Amino acid sequence: MQAFRLTRTARVPGYNRHSLLRIPSHLFLRSSPTQTSLRTHRTFSTTRTPAMPRTPETASFKFNHTMLRVKDPKVSLKFYTEVLGMDLVASTHLCLLSALEPLLTFPPAENEFETFTLYFLAFDHGTNTTAENRFTREGILELTHNHGTESDPNFQGYANGNSDPGRGFGHIAITVDDVEAACARFERLGVRFQKRLTDGKMKHIAFILDPDGYVLP
Amino acid sequence: MQAFRLTRTARVPGYNRHSLLRIPSHLFLRSSPTQTSLRTHRTFSTTRTPAMPRTPETASFKFNHTMLRVKDPKVSLKFYTEVLGMDLVASTHLCLLSALEPLLTFPPAENEFETFTLYFLAFDHGTNTTAENRFTREGILELTHNHGTESDPNFQGYANGNSDPGRGFGHIAITVDDVEAACARFERLGVRFQKRLTDGKMKHIAFILDPDGYVLP
Repeated sequence: MQAFRLTRTARVPGYNRHSLLRIPSHLFLRSSPTQTSLRTHRTFSTTRTPAMPRTPETASFKFNHTMLRVKDPKVSLKFYTEVLGMDLVASTHLCLLSALEPLLTFPPAENEFETFTLYFLAFDHGTNTTAENRFTREGILELTHNHGTESDPNFQGYANGNSDPGRGFGHIAITVDDVEAACARFERLGVRFQKRLTDGKMKHIAFILDPDGYVLP
Repeated sequence: MQAFRLTRTARVPGYNRHSLLRIPSHLFLRSSPTQTSLRTHRTFSTTRTPAMPRTPETASFKFNHTMLRVKDPKVSLKFYTEVLGMDLVASTHLCLLSALEPLLTFPPAENEFETFTLYFLAFDHGTNTTAENRFTREGILELTHNHGTESDPNFQGYANGNSDPGRGFGHIAITVDDVEAACARFERLGVRFQKRLTDGKMKHIAFILDPDGYVLP
């Protein structure tokens, strides 16, 4: 992250002088709010876990990836690599054969499709993330494509998690240095916005939508 | 990550000698599969994006966090900190006042509750992640608590994304050094399993469930 413009303020830590871009079933972008405007509708309390008994048993744990299902990987990969700038670091094709019925419980919801492909993306930025070492880092996005959805006229699309029924998952978020420039570029590239920087009170945050409608703030 | 037992194999990169623990609406754990057993039902192709025209405009982008809604933060925070070993690095309380109606479009699905709290967790592991610098790293988990759900007898719970209606989000995944030890510990702690290591053919993967039913493999 280049030149993240962070300031250390006691009242609204992390909310001044930075930009945040989120992408759940939509993308959410944030940039340099003023503390004053935020105070009108927010109260903040920052908590640091007080000396949690961190056990050696979890010392190796990493939050490696988040998985989202996508309808058409061609469209999604174009969006995540060319629009967002992520790198495709690995892909895995899986075939669930009927002879391996025990496997059909995993993943539990992919049963109606015989084959699916997993795509693993990350912001590499010179870290040289590969298929081999991708388990050793955080910030991986896994996209699951159940073969056939891209051409099935009866496929209704996936839920983005932000409305009932199906509410639960919210978004994935991407931080950026300059949210105004990022949004201007997304406008040029025809990205769908759920909330532009100019919408509402929170001028430092934007939400955009990925091809499946997942939100990215 | 301590002593990640990675080997570099051309055929199944990343699938030998490592452990993976996933946690979407359930947790998924993976450990040391043998290449032979996997070949019976999988074909692999590893893709490295060929010289993507990475633009300087996305050079600062980071996959900062994933947001999930939770019913009861007391239960969820206990799970994510004490069971999984994550650190609570920040929390934010928000109040949407009716005088600020434009804000009600964001977040779009939180309108029925006047107030909500956002909790930000991460595996710190000595990196000293704070509320101030949490935007400069990846691997953050945001838990959203819409006040009232924890005590509302009519609240039906959140969808975990893995069944219709509401299918879309799949899971969040955690990598671990020793998946057998991790699973044994989870058993002792009473964690719900969706798939134990001994279930099915994939003996290196387990899925556990968080308090809201999100899957963690």
